Amino acid sequence: MTQLEHATSAESCELAHLPTEALRKFRDRQQAAYEAIKARAVPFNLARGKPATEQVTLANQLLIAVATPEECWAEDGTDCRNYYGSPQGLIEARRLFAPMLGAPAEQVLVANNSSLALMHDAVVYALLTGARDGDVPWRDQRRPIRFVCPSPGYDRHFQICEQYGIEMIPVALTGAGPNMDEVEELAADPSVKGMWCVPKYSNPTGETYSSETVARLARMSAADDFRLFWDNAYAVHHLTDTPDPLDNVLDVCAAAGNPDRALVFGSTSKITFAQAGLGLFASSRANMRWFVARLSTRTIGPDKLNQLRHVRVLRNDAGIAEHMAQHRRLLAPKFAAVLEVFETRLGGTGAATWTRPRGGYFVSLDVLDGCAQRVVALAKAAGIETVPAGRTFPCGRDPRDRNIRIAPSFPPATEVAAAAEALATCVLVATCERLLVIRGVNG
Amino acid sequence: MTQLEHATSAESCELAHLPTEALRKFRDRQQAAYEAIKARAVPFNLARGKPATEQVTLANQLLIAVATPEECWAEDGTDCRNYYGSPQGLIEARRLFAPMLGAPAEQVLVANNSSLALMHDAVVYALLTGARDGDVPWRDQRRPIRFVCPSPGYDRHFQICEQYGIEMIPVALTGAGPNMDEVEELAADPSVKGMWCVPKYSNPTGETYSSETVARLARMSAADDFRLFWDNAYAVHHLTDTPDPLDNVLDVCAAAGNPDRALVFGSTSKITFAQAGLGLFASSRANMRWFVARLSTRTIGPDKLNQLRHVRVLRNDAGIAEHMAQHRRLLAPKFAAVLEVFETRLGGTGAATWTRPRGGYFVSLDVLDGCAQRVVALAKAAGIETVPAGRTFPCGRDPRDRNIRIAPSFPPATEVAAAAEALATCVLVATCERLLVIRGVNG
Repeated sequence: MTQLEHATSAESCELAHLPTEALRKFRDRQQAAYEAIKARAVPFNLARGKPATEQVTLANQLLIAVATPEECWAEDGTDCRNYYGSPQGLIEARRLFAPMLGAPAEQVLVANNSSLALMHDAVVYALLTGARDGDVPWRDQRRPIRFVCPSPGYDRHFQICEQYGIEMIPVALTGAGPNMDEVEELAADPSVKGMWCVPKYSNPTGETYSSETVARLARMSAADDFRLFWDNAYAVHHLTDTPDPLDNVLDVCAAAGNPDRALVFGSTSKITFAQAGLGLFASSRANMRWFVARLSTRTIGPDKLNQLRHVRVLRNDAGIAEHMAQHRRLLAPKFAAVLEVFETRLGGTGAATWTRPRGGYFVSLDVLDGCAQRVVALAKAAGIETVPAGRTFPCGRDPRDRNIRIAPSFPPATEVAAAAEALATCVLVATCERLLVIRGVNG
Repeated sequence: MTQLEHATSAESCELAHLPTEALRKFRDRQQAAYEAIKARAVPFNLARGKPATEQVTLANQLLIAVATPEECWAEDGTDCRNYYGSPQGLIEARRLFAPMLGAPAEQVLVANNSSLALMHDAVVYALLTGARDGDVPWRDQRRPIRFVCPSPGYDRHFQICEQYGIEMIPVALTGAGPNMDEVEELAADPSVKGMWCVPKYSNPTGETYSSETVARLARMSAADDFRLFWDNAYAVHHLTDTPDPLDNVLDVCAAAGNPDRALVFGSTSKITFAQAGLGLFASSRANMRWFVARLSTRTIGPDKLNQLRHVRVLRNDAGIAEHMAQHRRLLAPKFAAVLEVFETRLGGTGAATWTRPRGGYFVSLDVLDGCAQRVVALAKAAGIETVPAGRTFPCGRDPRDRNIRIAPSFPPATEVAAAAEALATCVLVATCERLLVIRGVNG
C-alpha cells in the first residue's frame, strides 16, 4: 500500500459517514458552487509542466550570450558555427553539467533538446542493435520485451514503450520510490529489459528514491542488458531549503558490480529555455562508447552554439543553483496556493489525498477510486484543463481511476488558487455522486 | 558504363602507351616532386564538405537575430523560449523553406540540425513501426531488407544501413542519376525497401538526376512501403549562372500514382551555420502524419528560437538565393583551382578523370582501377587528408578501388591549389607504379 492509499477508499472517506440527507445537502452546495464556476467560464490550465513566462525570462541572457563572431569559439579552438568537435558536445558544457549528473565530464554527453529524445534513442539503439556492443538486439530476443513502469509516472516515457511494442508492467510507488519487492521479482525475468525512473521529485508524485531503493535497484538480479532509464529531470528543481538527497546511481551500481546498469538523463528544459535548451546523458565509460558510436551515425554533432550560450550564462554548478533559486521564488507560491486551497476545501473530507512536493513540477491528487475521470470531465466542462485522467499510467489506464496530475507552474499564482478552488469543487461533487451511487440512492 | 569510366582503365591511359623507359623517367620525375612535397610537410585537408570560416561568417547575423524578449514571439503568438507549438516547427519557418523543398508549408517539417538525423529517424520508424500506418514493420518482414545505393554516394547514408543491418546494393551512376535499368530490376524485389538519392549536385559525383530518371523512379514497380530517401542537400548550392533543373519528385510521384514514395530532406547546414542550422523534411500529407506521430513520441518539439533566427535572416526564397550567391563567390574559385590544376597536371595523361561540378561540395576523382587506396596513402604520408578510399561506397568497399572524393571548400583557394597539385602528383606516382607492375617490371 502506498502512502497515498489510506484515505482514498470509500470506507475511510469522512463524507461517507454523513447521513444520506446531510450528504445530499452537502452535494447540493458543491453542485451550486460548481455551476457558478461554470457560469463564470474562466479558463485555467493545469495540464502541463510548462514554465511560466517569468521563468523563461530568467534565462534571457542566453539570447545575447554568443553575439559576436569572436564569442563563437570553444575553449579547444573549435568554431561553433561550423562542423565537428566531439559528438559528445563541448568539454566546457560537459564540465558544467557533470556535478548535476554525477559523472566525470568524460562520461557526460551534451546534446540538443531534449532528454526525452536521448531516452527514445537509447531505447531504439537497444531494440535494433542491443544494449551492449555485440549483444543480440532486444528486438531479436524473446518477445514481447518488458519495462517496469513505476506508476503514476511520466506519460511520455510510457508512450515510447507503446510506440515500439514494449510491454509495460506498472509498479506502485511507496513515497520512497517504487515497491522494491515487486521490482526485484519482475527484474529477475530476462524479458524485462528496462525500467523508467524519475528518481527525484518524481513526476507526478514528487517523491525521491531513498538510499535503500537506489541500492536495491543497483544490486538486484536482472538481465545483463537490463537498463535503468534514470530520468533525473528535477535534479536541481528544489522547492525547499533542504533539498532531498539522492544517491549517485552510477556510483552505487558500480559498487554493486553492475557498472553499466544505469543510463542517466537530464535536461535544461526547466532550467533555461524549454525546447531551446540542452539534453544531457551520463553513464559508464562502456555505455558512453556504446551510445556515441550509434549517435555518430545519426548526427555529425550537436548545436555547439547553444552549448556555448549555456556555459557562458550558467557558468558552473553554483551558477545553476543560483539560477534555480530564482525559479523557486516564482514556483513556490504557486505550489503553496494549491496546497492551501486543497487543505481548506478538501482537508478533513477524506475525499482526496495529495502530495506536498519538495521539488519538481507537480502535485499528485488521488481522489476516491473510480472518480478521477469524472473529476477531470467536470473540470474540463468548467474550463479547467488537466491532463486526461489515467494519462499518468501505462497505456493511459489508471486501474483505480483515481490519480490526477496537477501542474501549477504556468498560470499566475492568483489563477492557480482559483483553478485549485474550482478543481476542489469538482472533486467534492464527484465524491458525493459516487457515495450516493454506492448507497444506491439517486440525486 | 558511366560517363566517368571511359578513361580509367589501363588500356585507355595515355601513360600506358609510353615505352617502359620513358614511363620510368616520367615516374622518377613525379617521385622526386612527391618527395619534395613530403619534405615540405604542409598539411592540407580535402576530406570533408566543411564550409570555410568566411562562409559561416556570412550568417553571423543569426547570432543577434533574436536578441530581445520581444523578438522571441512567433507570428502565431507562441513564446519560442517555452514549450509547445507545432511539432512540425514554426509555420513561418515552414513557409520559408517550402519552395526549396517543393512542397506546401503544411507538408514541410522544420527540425533541429540535421537532415541526417531526420533520415536516420525515418529509417528507424520504418524498421520498428512500418513505413505506413498499420504496416508490418520492415524489421518483421522478410530478412534481410535491402536498400538501393547509387555509388559512389554519401558515406553517412551507407552507415545508417550498416548500423541497422540493411543490405546495400550498389548501383552505378550515369551522369544523369543512377542506372535506371538496374534500379527498376532491383526495386521490383519486395525486400528492397529504400533507395538513397542525392538528386542534385550529387555527393560526390556532382550530377543531377534527369527528368527521365525522376520519372522512372516515380513510376517503377516497387513495394508499397518502398521509399526514396531524397536527400536534396544541395538544392540551392549552385556554382554557375545556370542552375541544374531538378524535377519535383513529390509532384512526379503523385502524378505516377505513388504519392507516398518520396521522403524529401534538406538542411541549412551548408547555408547558415553547419551543425547549428535546421533539418528539413517534406513529403505527402500521409507521410507527414506518419512522421509527426512518431516524432512526437521522441520530442515535444524543436528549438523554435533557432527557427525564428533563420526566418529573420533568410526572410524568403529570394533571400536564400541571395545568401547562396555569396557562398558561390567564395566557393567557385576553389573549385576552379582544383580543376585548373587537374587539367594542367593530369589532362592528357589518361591517369584520371574527374567531375566538373555545377554545384554542391565535391569533385569526384576516378583514378586507374586499383590505385585509389595507394593515392590516398601517398597523399596522407605527404600531409594531404582526403576521406579514406572506398568510403564513398557501401561498407567502405570500392569494387574497382578508383574513386576519391575531394572537398575543396574549407581551405583557402591558394591552399586548395597546392593540395590539388600534391594530389595530382600522388595520382601520377601511383599510376606509374601500377603500369609498371602490369608490365611486370619493377621500379
